[in-house]
Amino acid sequence: MTRRNHDIAELRRLDVAHHLPAQSSYKLQRDIGGSRIIVRAEGSTIYDGDGNAILDGMAGLWCVDVGYGRAELAEVAREQMLELPFYNTFFRTATPPPIALATKLAGLLGGELQHIFFNSSGSESNDTVFRLVRTYWDIKGEPQRKTFISRRNAYHGSTVASASLGGMSYMHVQGDLPIPGVEHVMQPYWFGDGFGEDPVAFGARAAQDIEDRILAIGPEKIAAFIGEPVQGAGGVIIPPDGYWQQVEAICRKYGILLVLDEVICGFGRLGEWFGFQKFGVTPDIVSMAKGLSSGYLPISATAVSRAIVETLRSVDDDFVHGYTYSGHPVAAAVALRNLEIIEREQLVDRVRSDVGPYFAAALARLAAHPLVGEARSLGLIGAVEIVAEKGTNRRFGGREGMAGPMVRDACIAGGLMVRAVRDSIVMCPPFIITHEEIDRMVAIIAAALDQVAETLRALDLPLLEGAGEGL
Amino acid sequence: MTRRNHDIAELRRLDVAHHLPAQSSYKLQRDIGGSRIIVRAEGSTIYDGDGNAILDGMAGLWCVDVGYGRAELAEVAREQMLELPFYNTFFRTATPPPIALATKLAGLLGGELQHIFFNSSGSESNDTVFRLVRTYWDIKGEPQRKTFISRRNAYHGSTVASASLGGMSYMHVQGDLPIPGVEHVMQPYWFGDGFGEDPVAFGARAAQDIEDRILAIGPEKIAAFIGEPVQGAGGVIIPPDGYWQQVEAICRKYGILLVLDEVICGFGRLGEWFGFQKFGVTPDIVSMAKGLSSGYLPISATAVSRAIVETLRSVDDDFVHGYTYSGHPVAAAVALRNLEIIEREQLVDRVRSDVGPYFAAALARLAAHPLVGEARSLGLIGAVEIVAEKGTNRRFGGREGMAGPMVRDACIAGGLMVRAVRDSIVMCPPFIITHEEIDRMVAIIAAALDQVAETLRALDLPLLEGAGEGL
Repeated sequence: MTRRNHDIAELRRLDVAHHLPAQSSYKLQRDIGGSRIIVRAEGSTIYDGDGNAILDGMAGLWCVDVGYGRAELAEVAREQMLELPFYNTFFRTATPPPIALATKLAGLLGGELQHIFFNSSGSESNDTVFRLVRTYWDIKGEPQRKTFISRRNAYHGSTVASASLGGMSYMHVQGDLPIPGVEHVMQPYWFGDGFGEDPVAFGARAAQDIEDRILAIGPEKIAAFIGEPVQGAGGVIIPPDGYWQQVEAICRKYGILLVLDEVICGFGRLGEWFGFQKFGVTPDIVSMAKGLSSGYLPISATAVSRAIVETLRSVDDDFVHGYTYSGHPVAAAVALRNLEIIEREQLVDRVRSDVGPYFAAALARLAAHPLVGEARSLGLIGAVEIVAEKGTNRRFGGREGMAGPMVRDACIAGGLMVRAVRDSIVMCPPFIITHEEIDRMVAIIAAALDQVAETLRALDLPLLEGAGEGL
Repeated sequence: MTRRNHDIAELRRLDVAHHLPAQSSYKLQRDIGGSRIIVRAEGSTIYDGDGNAILDGMAGLWCVDVGYGRAELAEVAREQMLELPFYNTFFRTATPPPIALATKLAGLLGGELQHIFFNSSGSESNDTVFRLVRTYWDIKGEPQRKTFISRRNAYHGSTVASASLGGMSYMHVQGDLPIPGVEHVMQPYWFGDGFGEDPVAFGARAAQDIEDRILAIGPEKIAAFIGEPVQGAGGVIIPPDGYWQQVEAICRKYGILLVLDEVICGFGRLGEWFGFQKFGVTPDIVSMAKGLSSGYLPISATAVSRAIVETLRSVDDDFVHGYTYSGHPVAAAVALRNLEIIEREQLVDRVRSDVGPYFAAALARLAAHPLVGEARSLGLIGAVEIVAEKGTNRRFGGREGMAGPMVRDACIAGGLMVRAVRDSIVMCPPFIITHEEIDRMVAIIAAALDQVAETLRALDLPLLEGAGEGL
């Protein structure tokens, strides 16, 4: 392995001069003199160009499930690239890797989810969902079924259609989204929207909101419901018990397709191969990305039920959708080996019965911190809600989004990469994270909370006594 | 290099059972017993699982510009994957490869196109265009500028928004496209729509249709015009002289952004690094993909002018758009090396002054074939129009799309991979194609035309005398 010498100052200058990072303020990028340059990584640790080692509490961006530094994935990429770096699937052609990967995924998904369409990102997968579902209903003779129902604060991608399917209002204001045909309903966010309510009753109320909207629009006009098993970018929203069963029952009652976006939850994140297995429901379509390749190469997959494919096969027409890189052989070969690593090292079991419970126990300690309103996790994904007053969900400064970024910045300065979503700190570490690393993660968050508590106290904002005491 | 033994019959069975290829009829896939399995490739030749060597007249899917078998690209992928397989650009972070690639692209693009946003596909790039352009006009205080103007028969991708920007009516019928805010005007397709007219006058008429539509809608409502320098998937439509200058002048007259989709034309296909350089116009935004990495890994780029970025930097807001794999370090490292190969081997010069002219001369011979109505090319992209009557643009059977697929199938059976677009055969070979391979390509097409002429004659369709005689 070569470790190159980078001129970090020059890279930061060129970043400002020529590179537009994702989901960023380009004014801030310029004003801070360019991005932090991450130059290498190993295991659960990333290293920046200034020599800082940072524990990666986010697995890159909810994706590097098997951790960094997997030499066999590099070797597989190299071998496939030498043998066949690219061929398309447009010309009644295919290559071995996507067929092998589709077969593998069909086995992991089980049941009726036996057909796989490939794309390169979660966004593209959800665009595939959009076009596929409408085409399906046209063929079924129900062309009036055009409307998708999604949840507010859902994340389904950044293309025009996938951001429309998503429920991020801050994204909708840029580009005049959502496009027509997407309706947003309640999310099952108990801490934010149901605080004080019985969680199961709140979950039932959130599910009922879906049915109410279906009835308001007319069930015969609804094409599909789409949701993440656990909302990721929305702040690790874990739905109350019973919610998903009720959602599934509502979809079945009105003949509506159930689409699960497993881009974050899939491949073991919740301690089962898929979130729908964890919650005991049976979707018609599943979107997958991120953990599919552990982020080593761009690839995503859309699993489709047998019944849908039989419908598509009832006509001669092409499904006139697909991307140049649908089923890219190198990306597919790497994804397949990544799944083999997860199986061989029993990483799903590890999440379920080892690091998942250890993470939950560590978060339970953090829950005692005066600034923590709730610390929740499922498998190896979790969030800490920062509150101004213990026992409530009141936020510092009387508004959301003040404390979260402060705690996040303190964590990063302390050697832990996490993300702030409003006033929660979200975590999604690699499956290979050790107990020591989990302890360190929680200790850094606790210290960051202490530090921010001091700052907030100095700002004379509403703050509970003793918030500076730490764990 | 390992050459694996594949069980082709089993792969074909699994293809039907589990894999949904792109832009395909799943009924046909099942009925023919699965896709043709491409197992390896070298230079300009692909090999299928039955041992057939097929000259790749399409460079994969308009993308494998440097040809197959580039060991150094495999090595670069391996090295980057060992060092840093993934990190994101969301967290005020970046990695060296996308910055280096952005810097390289800025140098190649020149002028004001100095800022690069990364994505994984041409579709994603055009979704970026859609969201970026609308955000730009909002910041500029012209929020009413929402409408994009595109051409009928344009191809800009397969997501909901990029297929809407595209002008493929057969795609629009699936999924209820286009979405609001996209208007389609004339394409500059002389052979199809201007036959018999003076080409330059026809081009002016096609440009005028853009201005007429702008005036009909109201110039103050138009956000951008988007077009491919040479339409690729639409059938290699080479616009008449003067067309692009007129389009640019119209955009400037009404203050409308000019977006060029260089997904196919970029990186030397037309004998210049970019199509806009070939046609002498200055776009505000450029979409790139395919040749950027020669298809070795999924990556695309959106170049944005300084003026647009300065506008984005005039506010504090994030541009809330971007993909997990925006600036993927492995894909970016491979793309950078791919561009270095193009430079080192002077492949743009090769297209301009060697294989491009040789290809044009070979097509000129093909133009003498009784079934050929026109054989056109620019650089290393070309098309042959199949007609029922020499000297006209009349099609066999009195409708489009009968003869083209027949000739295509005969070409593939003869050892040449080409694509049929209606009744044209389109070609887009790797830049490394040899003179001998170009001669072979044209000879196979000529033989296919002869063979199909016989078949069509037997069908007793309108057919010019002597069509069976070949070159």
